[in-house]
This record gives sequence, structure tokens and C-alpha cells, in this order.
Amino acid sequence: MITGVAGLIGRSLARLYLERGERVTGVDAAADAARRLPPDIARAAHFSFLNEDVLTGGRWREAAAGADLVLHLAANSDIQRSFEAPDLDLRQGFLSTQSVLEAMRAGRARRLGFASSSAVYGEPTLFPTPEEYGPLLPLSLYGAAKLASEALISAYAHGYGFTACLFRPANVVGGEATHGVVFDFVRALRRDPRRLRILGDGRQSKPYLHASECAQGMAWALERATEGARAFNLTPADAIDVRRIADLVCRALGLEGVEYELTGGERGWPGDVPRVLLDPTRLARAGWSARLTSLQAVERAARELAEARPSASA
Amino acid sequence: MITGVAGLIGRSLARLYLERGERVTGVDAAADAARRLPPDIARAAHFSFLNEDVLTGGRWREAAAGADLVLHLAANSDIQRSFEAPDLDLRQGFLSTQSVLEAMRAGRARRLGFASSSAVYGEPTLFPTPEEYGPLLPLSLYGAAKLASEALISAYAHGYGFTACLFRPANVVGGEATHGVVFDFVRALRRDPRRLRILGDGRQSKPYLHASECAQGMAWALERATEGARAFNLTPADAIDVRRIADLVCRALGLEGVEYELTGGERGWPGDVPRVLLDPTRLARAGWSARLTSLQAVERAARELAEARPSASA
Repeated sequence: MITGVAGLIGRSLARLYLERGERVTGVDAAADAARRLPPDIARAAHFSFLNEDVLTGGRWREAAAGADLVLHLAANSDIQRSFEAPDLDLRQGFLSTQSVLEAMRAGRARRLGFASSSAVYGEPTLFPTPEEYGPLLPLSLYGAAKLASEALISAYAHGYGFTACLFRPANVVGGEATHGVVFDFVRALRRDPRRLRILGDGRQSKPYLHASECAQGMAWALERATEGARAFNLTPADAIDVRRIADLVCRALGLEGVEYELTGGERGWPGDVPRVLLDPTRLARAGWSARLTSLQAVERAARELAEARPSASA
Repeated sequence: MITGVAGLIGRSLARLYLERGERVTGVDAAADAARRLPPDIARAAHFSFLNEDVLTGGRWREAAAGADLVLHLAANSDIQRSFEAPDLDLRQGFLSTQSVLEAMRAGRARRLGFASSSAVYGEPTLFPTPEEYGPLLPLSLYGAAKLASEALISAYAHGYGFTACLFRPANVVGGEATHGVVFDFVRALRRDPRRLRILGDGRQSKPYLHASECAQGMAWALERATEGARAFNLTPADAIDVRRIADLVCRALGLEGVEYELTGGERGWPGDVPRVLLDPTRLARAGWSARLTSLQAVERAARELAEARPSASA
């Protein structure tokens, strides 16, 4: 079972497990989720879809209770405005996790993959940041909800015998993105190809992971997981800054001479972490590494987004 | 304002701030909280009491909104049975914190002291454990709720300009305890002075802090806190094991030849952490250290409990 299946990571994971011949039940709360699901997933023989919110719906509970593996990806994706409506991350980022855990506990499901975030590290002082880094003082309500979820999953793992991977991915990019910096830049440049508004000073530097690789890394770790909860950075070894991403997106769209309008300041928004560099060693030791660098991942995502037919909202 | 004011730490903090001439509003959800409050606090001129739950009540919000300092101590204290009713820690340990933070945000209150726990460390591999220790994988729902609360407080600190101390105290003991190993042993030995049931193998080793010192340490850190969230171990430098505590309690009660019945196993209960030793360096550098060792703190608490008139429930 996959929650948040209509999102970028959800689609890649659904595709990966369907290609392996697994049955996949996808759950997504977005009103347009069924329409947004790509046909190769939506029409797959072993795929079924429930348009429900894990906080309010009921049918997904049965699927969760009997699932060999639950991948919980559903969350609030509007990170930038979360301080205006703190209830969003509380409900969609944390209480949704609690709801999924309770449904699993009520049934026989004991294997969980959770999409956490490098936002749990807050503003680290150690680069690249390993999974053992502390203190964990998140700057955003998004990061707080992710760390709170990790904490709850860890206790469920110990108390109820769960096997859980807590994934802390780099920024995930890809042609099927629904938000994020690469998606935002492509959309903005399609509206106005002469200028591009960049949040912050453009020097925020972060690692980027292609969605297809993200799904592969998650599946790899989950196959090898043993009882208990364990955190995994999912990341290339490098990072690139926002101006470089703007350059790559402009090139993918065939644009030249675009004027960058920097809003200024170290952070793109309140709770933004200006420097992220994650240590990929733990998962590398288990045998998996991202093949694309951050630059290659962004380049590929920008190309995919540039080639995609602009959707109605773009 | 102090939530959980009828508890052991709550009373010590109320006393400390009342003695300094501060106005204190105490909040406690327990039905018998008003009766349980010691007269020196209950009758103090600058003390007012609200018998409310911060999840359901409304009057405390006004006090929180205008408070110079909020001390949030209210939580589920029945740690041993929390896996039987996971809702308890979720509500009383985490959602109560969220409720307090929202009440503060709605008003002008921006200074918070939070009673977290060494349970956030899970089962650490580094002793003594410093505040920077990671990964944070709590074993109990109690610990999970504390870490989840820390995460949320950290994001509020960044997003809304809070100044917050996240206190991770040793096991707090004292003559006014309402639960905990020293309290439980005194009560059990008053019922049957010939034998004592000890959970686990009796070798679980933890640090113990007297409530009066706990309150002093908290006040010390809060006076010196600057904007943002910071974690502080509150602990003596040493630890003692459960058998030794049993010996000290027997001696305080004047008992000899008590037969110890060990229930066996490394943990006292599911989620119990068999070895805890916390690094007191951070707060020591700020100028505060516990004067009593763990042994002295337990000795004093056992004496105080032995001298106290047994309450109706004992």
C-alpha cells in the first residue's frame, strides 16, 4: 500500500513495485488524484486506487491492515506557507502517520517505509550530515512533523515489532513533479520567459535526487531491513545551488538571457535551510548509491519537465 | 504559568518561583489536583489554580497567552502501560504541547520551558550521553511524544520567535513523588515489608535527580536562554541501579531481610531503557550542576517519602 501515490515519489514507487509483479493499492487524498495518475499506473492490472484521506477515510484501513509493506508518503507539500497555517503539518504530516501506524497495528502489517526528510536535521553544523547527527532541531513545521513521525514510528517498531525504514531523501525531482524548485522554475518561465524570481539569495545549496532513483533506493533498503526502526539518507554525495538550477532549467527550456530577480536573504522562506549536504555512506555500505549527481538529476528533471506537455495549471 | 503543577516537578517549580515573588498560575488536569496541592503553594498569595486539561479546557489559554514564562510539564505518567493504550501519550504527551504552543502563539507569550525526557535518546550507544547524541530513536510512546514535542517546539522557536529550553532530566525523585521507582518501592514495602517485587533483573542503571534541584536547574537555564530552542540534560554525573535503590528504600523504612523478587529480563517493561547515563557538561558550562549524586538524591527522596504520612492510596 502506498499513501500519497499521486505524488512524485508515490508514482515512482508504484511503478517500481508494479513492474516487479506486486499488487499495489494506492491511496491519495487530492481531489484530482485519480485524474492525475499516469495511465501506466492507473490502468495496471495489479493496481487499485482509493481516493481517501488517511485521517478521515475508512476503506484504506483494510488495505493497510493486510499489506505486506506500507509506504507512507502522504504529507503537506506546501512547506513555504506552513507557518501561516500550522495545523496543516500537524494533521497531514504527523497525525496521518499516527493513523497509518494504528491501522497497521490493528491488522498484521508490520513493514513500513516512511518518507521523512532532511528537514529533521534543522540547521546542521556537520557536512555531509550523517544519520546519527544531533541535535535534531527542525526549523520548519514540515520538518517537525517528519521528526515527530520518526519518533512515533520508532516507538511502534520497538513496542509492536515493526520493521521500519525512515527515509531522509535529498530534494526529489523528476518529470512528474507537482511542486519543488525545478517544477516552479519551469512553470514560471513558461509564464514569463524573460525573467525568473528566485527566493532568497540563490546561494542555498542542496542535494537533488531523481524520483526513479529515490524509489530504487527505498526498495533496496526495505528489502534488507530487519526489525526495528532505522534512518537512511537517500542522496547523491554532492549538492548544487539554486542559481545553478535556474541556469539548468533555462537551458532545458532553450532560453537565454533570462533576468534573475533575487528576493534576497539567506533563506528562501521562513524555515528554509540554506545549506544541506547529506552523507550517503550508510546506504552505500548496504550496497545502494545514487548514480546521478545532483546536477545530473536536476538536468534530467528539467529536461523531462520541459518536454512534458504543459498541464492546465502550468 | 505551570502545566502539570500538581506533579513532583510542578510543585518544586511553583515553590521556587513563588519564593522569588513571582505570580504563578498552576494548571493541572487531575481530578484530585486541588486537594493534592500542598498548602504552602495552594494558599500562597500569588498563586492561582485552574483545574483544567490543556486539551479540552479554555480558561488556561488566557493565562498562557499573557505569561512571561510557560513551564509545560503536563504529560502521561503511566509510562509502563502506554503500549496498551497508545492514545494516552499521543494526547497527553504531544497534543498537549501543541495546544500550549498555539495558546502562546495566539498571545504574546514567547518563553517556554518544556519537561522533555532522556527517553528521547532511545537506547544510546554513547555514555554519558550528550545533548547532541543521535540517532534519536525512542523505544517508548512516552519518549516518542517527548521527541515529537521537542520537534514542534523547535519549529515554533524558529518560526514565531520563541525562546525554549528542552529539559531532558534524569529520573526525578522527591518526597512529593506521585509515581516512579522510589515512590513505588515505599508504597509496596508499606503493604508488605517482607518482600519487594522488582521489575526486570534489577540491574537497570539510571541517574536520579532530586525535584528541588531539578527546579533550580530549569530556572537557571531559563534565565540565561536566548531565542531559539536548546536541549539540556538535567542530571547528576552518575547513575545507580534498581537493586541499590531497593536497598536504600529498605534502609529508609528501617527494614531488614526484605526478599527481592526479580521479575527478570533486561528491561523493567516494554520500552524501558536499561542503561541511562547523561552528560551534564552543557549545563555545567552554563554554571549549574546538581549537588546531590544519584545515590544521595534517592537517599533523600526515600527518607522524605518514609517520613511522610502515608496518603489514602498508599
